[in-house]
Formats: sequence, structure tokens, C-alpha cells
Amino acid sequence: MKCALVGIDGRVRHVERHATGAERGAPAVVATILDVADGLAGKAYADGLRPVACGVAVPGVIDEAAGVAVWSGNIGFRDVPLRDLVAARLGVPTALGHDVRVGALAEARLGAARSSRHVLFVAIGTGIAASHVVDGAAFAGAHGAAGEFGHILVRPGGPRCGCGRPGCLETVASAAAVGRRYTELTGNPADAAEVVARMRAGEAAAGQIWQEAVEALADGLVTAQSLLDVDTIVLGGGLARAGADLFDPLHAALRERMTFHREPRLVPAALGDEAGCLGAALIALDSLESS
Amino acid sequence: MKCALVGIDGRVRHVERHATGAERGAPAVVATILDVADGLAGKAYADGLRPVACGVAVPGVIDEAAGVAVWSGNIGFRDVPLRDLVAARLGVPTALGHDVRVGALAEARLGAARSSRHVLFVAIGTGIAASHVVDGAAFAGAHGAAGEFGHILVRPGGPRCGCGRPGCLETVASAAAVGRRYTELTGNPADAAEVVARMRAGEAAAGQIWQEAVEALADGLVTAQSLLDVDTIVLGGGLARAGADLFDPLHAALRERMTFHREPRLVPAALGDEAGCLGAALIALDSLESS
Repeated sequence: MKCALVGIDGRVRHVERHATGAERGAPAVVATILDVADGLAGKAYADGLRPVACGVAVPGVIDEAAGVAVWSGNIGFRDVPLRDLVAARLGVPTALGHDVRVGALAEARLGAARSSRHVLFVAIGTGIAASHVVDGAAFAGAHGAAGEFGHILVRPGGPRCGCGRPGCLETVASAAAVGRRYTELTGNPADAAEVVARMRAGEAAAGQIWQEAVEALADGLVTAQSLLDVDTIVLGGGLARAGADLFDPLHAALRERMTFHREPRLVPAALGDEAGCLGAALIALDSLESS
Repeated sequence: MKCALVGIDGRVRHVERHATGAERGAPAVVATILDVADGLAGKAYADGLRPVACGVAVPGVIDEAAGVAVWSGNIGFRDVPLRDLVAARLGVPTALGHDVRVGALAEARLGAARSSRHVLFVAIGTGIAASHVVDGAAFAGAHGAAGEFGHILVRPGGPRCGCGRPGCLETVASAAAVGRRYTELTGNPADAAEVVARMRAGEAAAGQIWQEAVEALADGLVTAQSLLDVDTIVLGGGLARAGADLFDPLHAALRERMTFHREPRLVPAALGDEAGCLGAALIALDSLESS
């Protein structure tokens, strides 16, 4: 759990990290969230600050309007009214958001896309998820399930995805897929960062796996751009740390594929690990303004 | 050109059709639009009605905020300030919109999806286009080019599209593609309606072409649903008139492909030919309210 005290000016005043302890089950995780939030509020008061609102961001399917963590595969949330639980504990207005969507909000309003009105934020790590932000608002969809960019079809008949279907983007282009596919091809275990290092060292198998990931990602981004017509695409998550090793071939692959499209800017995320905390602070402040 | 006088209550009072005459070039089409609009206003006054606003919808890339028809392949518009031209001629507030987006607005607010907040409208005819409507507003994108659903990738390495890329959805699933592919397979010319008739009569080639179109469309819709998470998908355009011959196999293909997704309602467009005129009236009324 990444936690922070953030000023109304957007400045991060204090940062904490805590183990989620998901293996203990959802009720224990909820109790930890409440304790950690309470501890942060206490730290604020001790520093002469006054907490005015709290933002909480979690993964999975979130009903943002109702403040409910509807479902999470990793943590096991099932219809947890997390917003009201935190608000009752802290005694301040609280907002509940989705981890990727609040990160996208932060990058769109304060980070890499702060001059853009139409933004697609893509987080590439173990899986791949995205959020479409227009004029500073992230779309959650009808059921809080929008942005499942990792599950768009790019390779019909391709590798079977954890979701049950073959050919999803994240079976080829996620950090986990890059490592797994390299191991399948060579018999040597490696994670995505090692595959990039081996590609740089001139190893053909690593170069092939990486190029396949880049091309699948380019196919997915062109599909998204055809539907959404954004002006900026922000890439975040572990894979985006590959820097020029990702952005140079990806730029080339996008340019090759875009025909009638207006080519969006393609930029790395700027806020790093702080994006989630800043985004949680943004939804907390938004909830104050709309209440 | 489909034209109507529409009451503030949404009732269509009068309908006219005129030839676009695109072969005469964009300036002549603009002159015809102005003359036809003027004639409709005159008809309204003659009937004892008072026109309060005008909505104009055209194809291509539209800058809705500026009221400019930026680009159209079919008609040849290049940065035509159509909104201001019509407003000056008629002397009433005027709004300019995109043909698919205004049709989507009408279906979302008055038609097949009027009880839904998150709607994807898909028009399948010669090409395939879509519009994402949330809470009664259609997304235009950063450059007025959102909704190019016909150009999402579904068949990598597949038939080359008019846009220059291989494997776009509309190379397999548009009405034009169904006819063309049947002709390629059998040597017999046929349009999509004839392919459906032959499939119904048990002809294997027609059944195969149709099934391929349905499966490509299902792949595309699952990709869109993964990104957008809508509650209702409305299918319009010529191909949707195939009725149960389209909807029954498409329902089955969608069900087969959806895993974690919430399955959206899939319904045929309800407003038919009038959707465009009603949508143009809606953006005209919206512009009155926001001015």
C-alpha cells in the first residue's frame, strides 16, 4: 500500500508504505486500510496539518458513485463499502477510486499529459490496463469495468489469456508475457528487464520476443486510437521503464500503422510511484468540491 | 440529404429529401445545404411555426466546438465553417455535428437505448463507424475523429482495407465486405442482402461469408466492450436490417467471447432513417441551452 499526505497545492508532504497482506483475506486488508488511514491522519495532526478529505484507490471493479469495492481478484473484495468505512473512521469526506484510473487522472492533470484534454493512460506491468481521461475525468464505464486494454484482441488464435480467451494483448505485450515467452522460446528463465538487457546485448531470441511485444502493443494502441482519438498516450508501469528500448521501436511501429489517424503524442509517465497517491488526493479534493 | 422540421417535443413535423450532388464539388453542396435550410425555415413559417434553432450533421472529420467541417472524403469539405454559414443565412442559432454521432445521440436519448447511460452505437453499412455516448453526450475525440470502429484490427494479415492497413474490421464485417467476399469466393456478384437470402436458402458459401462477418464483428465488439464497458450496444445501418439473421448468431458469438465482461444489451436501432434528423435537432436544442 502506497500512502501519502498531499497538500491542497498537490505537494506530497509525507509518504508511507505498508504491506497489503492480501493472503490474510479481504476483511484483514480492510482493517489494515482503516488503521493505516487513521495513522496517517494522526501523523498529519502531529505535524500541525488538518486532514480535509481522504482518497482511497484499490484494484478490481469499483462502483465509484456508491463508494463500493465490488470485486477484486487479487485481494478478494466482494461489495465492500470502503468509502463509508474510511469516512466513518476518519471523520472526513472520503472518495473511493480505481487504482489505474486515479493514476491516469494524476498523469492527465499533474503529470505527463497535463497540457492535454484527451488522454489514454496505459499501465503495463504483470497485466495491462488503461484509462481514458477527457477534460480531467476518467471513464469508469457502466459497471466500473472500463479500460481492460489488456484484453483487447490482437492475435486471434494466439496464446490463451488468464481471462480464458486466446489472443488478448496482455498474452504478448505485458511484462509477465515477455518473460514467459522468452523462457518458452529459450528454456532460460528471465523477467522482462532481463529480456531487454539481452536484446541490447544482441541476443536474437530476446530481440524477437521484444519486437513481438512492441508490435502487439502498437496494434492495440492503433485500435484504441481509432476508437478514442486522444491527443496524448501516456505509458506507465514497469515495462515503460525500458525507456528508449520501448519508445523508439514503438514509435516506429505506430507510425507504420497509422493511416488516416491523427498521431497522438506518446510519452512516458512522469509521476512514477507517486501517481496513485496524487490521484487519490485528486478524487478526494474533487469530492469536496462536488459536495 | 435527409431534412426535417422537428418540434421541441421531439416530434417530426415535416420531412424532405434532397440529392447531395457531391459530384458538383464542396462549394455547390454547401450552397445546396444553405438553400435547403432556408427552404425548410420558409416551410416552417408558412405552417405557422417559428424555427428557433438549426442542426446540421455531415460525415467526415468535424470540429464541433468551432462548427467547422474539417475534412470529408465523400463530399470534399476542407475547413468549411458550415455552422456560421447556416446561422448567417437563417438568422437562428445553429449547431454542426457528425452524422454518426448525432444518430447515436438520438438512439441514446430517444431511441433503442433511451434507458441507458453508457451506449455504443454502431452503424454498419458500406463502412463501419461507431459513437460512444455517456449520459447523453457523444465523444468526438481530440480531433473530431473518434469512433472509427471499422478500422480496429481484428484479422492481422487479413484483407487490405481502403485505409491502407490489412485486417480492419470493415474489410470483413461491413455490408460492402460481405458482398465483395461472396463474389470473390463464388464468382457471382451479390450484395449483403442477397448473401443473407442465399444463406437462409442453405447455400454453404453464403453461410461461411456471413459467419465470418459475424465472428469478426463479435471480436470487434468484445474489444470495444473491454475498453468502454457500456450497458447497451445499438446496431444500426443497412446490415442491422438482417434482423434475427444477424442478431441470433452475433449474440451467440458474443456470449462465447465474453469472460470477465459484463455482457451489454445488444439491440437494433429503433429510429431508422429519422435518427440523423432527430440527432441534428437534439444538438440544435443543446446549443440553445448552453448559449
